Amino acid sequence: MTTQVILLNGGSSSGKSGLVRCLQAVLPDPWLAFGVDTFVDSLPARMRSSDGGIEFGADGGVSVGADFLALQAAWAEGVAATARAGARIVVDDVFLSGAESQRRWRKALGGVGTLWVAVRCEAEVAAGREIARGDRTPGMAALQADLVHEGVEYDVEVDTTRGESLDCARAIAAQVR
Amino acid sequence: MTTQVILLNGGSSSGKSGLVRCLQAVLPDPWLAFGVDTFVDSLPARMRSSDGGIEFGADGGVSVGADFLALQAAWAEGVAATARAGARIVVDDVFLSGAESQRRWRKALGGVGTLWVAVRCEAEVAAGREIARGDRTPGMAALQADLVHEGVEYDVEVDTTRGESLDCARAIAAQVR
Amino acid sequence: MTTQVILLNGGSSSGKSGLVRCLQAVLPDPWLAFGVDTFVDSLPARMRSSDGGIEFGADGGVSVGADFLALQAAWAEGVAATARAGARIVVDDVFLSGAESQRRWRKALGGVGTLWVAVRCEAEVAAGREIARGDRTPGMAALQADLVHEGVEYDVEVDTTRGESLDCARAIAAQVR
Amino acid sequence: MTTQVILLNGGSSSGKSGLVRCLQAVLPDPWLAFGVDTFVDSLPARMRSSDGGIEFGADGGVSVGADFLALQAAWAEGVAATARAGARIVVDDVFLSGAESQRRWRKALGGVGTLWVAVRCEAEVAAGREIARGDRTPGMAALQADLVHEGVEYDVEVDTTRGESLDCARAIAAQVR
Repeated sequence: MTTQVILLNGGSSSGKSGLVRCLQAVLPDPWLAFGVDTFVDSLPARMRSSDGGIEFGADGGVSVGADFLALQAAWAEGVAATARAGARIVVDDVFLSGAESQRRWRKALGGVGTLWVAVRCEAEVAAGREIARGDRTPGMAALQADLVHEGVEYDVEVDTTRGESLDCARAIAAQVR
Repeated sequence: MTTQVILLNGGSSSGKSGLVRCLQAVLPDPWLAFGVDTFVDSLPARMRSSDGGIEFGADGGVSVGADFLALQAAWAEGVAATARAGARIVVDDVFLSGAESQRRWRKALGGVGTLWVAVRCEAEVAAGREIARGDRTPGMAALQADLVHEGVEYDVEVDTTRGESLDCARAIAAQVR
Repeated sequence: MTTQVILLNGGSSSGKSGLVRCLQAVLPDPWLAFGVDTFVDSLPARMRSSDGGIEFGADGGVSVGADFLALQAAWAEGVAATARAGARIVVDDVFLSGAESQRRWRKALGGVGTLWVAVRCEAEVAAGREIARGDRTPGMAALQADLVHEGVEYDVEVDTTRGESLDCARAIAAQVR
Repeated sequence: MTTQVILLNGGSSSGKSGLVRCLQAVLPDPWLAFGVDTFVDSLPARMRSSDGGIEFGADGGVSVGADFLALQAAWAEGVAATARAGARIVVDDVFLSGAESQRRWRKALGGVGTLWVAVRCEAEVAAGREIARGDRTPGMAALQADLVHEGVEYDVEVDTTRGESLDCARAIAAQVR
């Protein structure tokens, strides 16, 4: 089956965004890039700090409410429909619920050829990069580094701890059909 | 029919983005915000300055190619599917092809309750705001001010020339069912 | 005396940034733009939410500590030295201490030809624009609208409540020597 | 002599910005961060694509004109004055003229305790990171990687090719007096 969606899952500051741009550069066809950060930016401002929406704790913890999950599910249906309409898409997400997050995406992406990719980065290194980028609550990277991969099944795994984004992108691109 | 999508059409620097944020603030339900700028950002970098993609001329002119139109059509299908899955969405776009752009959206949004909104701003004022924002090619605002409305049919029209974004948002919100 | 510095003072969301870009566009010479937002961004991340640094309250209140004031005073000396070295500069600031803030700038700018400009905007309108821009704590605009002008003396006053940025910029530019 | 300024020099995409944020995080005192990117942003829009200002060629080449150099010299005087007024500052620059750029900074920083730091990154790796960040003209990283270090004398040298920003920052911080 043709790969229509490349779905990257990794913790905060694991290097997903750089990887997405490198994938878009090395893949010969044009691929759209949709990510959970863009989805969060599309929410009303008041939902970015509320019970029903998404809350970023002072310790780096992230919790999401019922409204967030409902809108996120609708967004995933939209991503799947975009793929079914012919676009190829690189999606990056943070599976806060591990295997359950994957189950939700699988349901939305029914029948869409998907390459599941783990973006790993050792917690300590990700925490350092979190300081270097300077726009994330300290602690998020370490908290999410392993959590997001629990019970998730992948087709490809890359590790940005010592691997450059461009090299990781080439390894992923080699698995695209 | 329930309004599921509010579709704003207006030229560059007509005030669409501010209007979108005000709509999200005044509408009691949570509405997602999807816009053509975010779509353009989701394209591979090389498509943002190429024949098949989108090109921004030195005079403010914008031209789009076949690859761009195909991906944009797929994106519109995704917006429609997100709405059908239950999310309410404010979409902002620049109808570079006027009535033909509306026809394409109508096709994608079949069966989705849509409120069509004109965001007007006098060319001279929009050109001044283009200088004030400082991140757009000078000339785009004036070129698009009238062009994007040619032959387009609306449910509501607002004018940001002298109206504040928040007041315009309230006028639009009053038409949402 | 030649105007070497144009110093704009106004509350949050009064339209200073747009005014600065319009001034740079209409003034024939090249003028640098230095602003308090850029200064705040130059602080270590930990000072942007601490007692000694700057704190943004949930109600839009802003308080600054001793470390902040010391670094700000050093920054003002740098702005003055840049002007004395020949550059012409548009500075935008928020006089949280009103007349006392002006006194500090006057001390730093000793001997530098300075045009003092009030950027006014009615509190209610500024509060609406705060919602439209979406990146400021709600409440800041209304709190600062009058506060920052208390006891301050000006050479020119502009009002963005109904005036476009470009028109206000032309009125200021006409006073530059 | 107390270190008042840490001056980082390195090519585009060598990792200077991340290094600056890590330095601000690991140094116990508050250090301001001033960089050449912020200086370029302070120029009038029209100077960012003109003969007298700064021009970014399609091949990644950068050329600067007389107006740019004059304003940059005034800016350097301001940085020095800020340091003399008591602030400690991390400056990042790209020495497009190598040893001559250093000579200009030395002149401005007369009497100010300065730690000169080389930020190196192998051209091929920097070029890959340029793709990953996605906001720079491709080619700039490779062109500048060695060029900016020609004839420049340093107190410390770090290499981000394989070193993490946080580790490099600690190595630099250890040399601060």
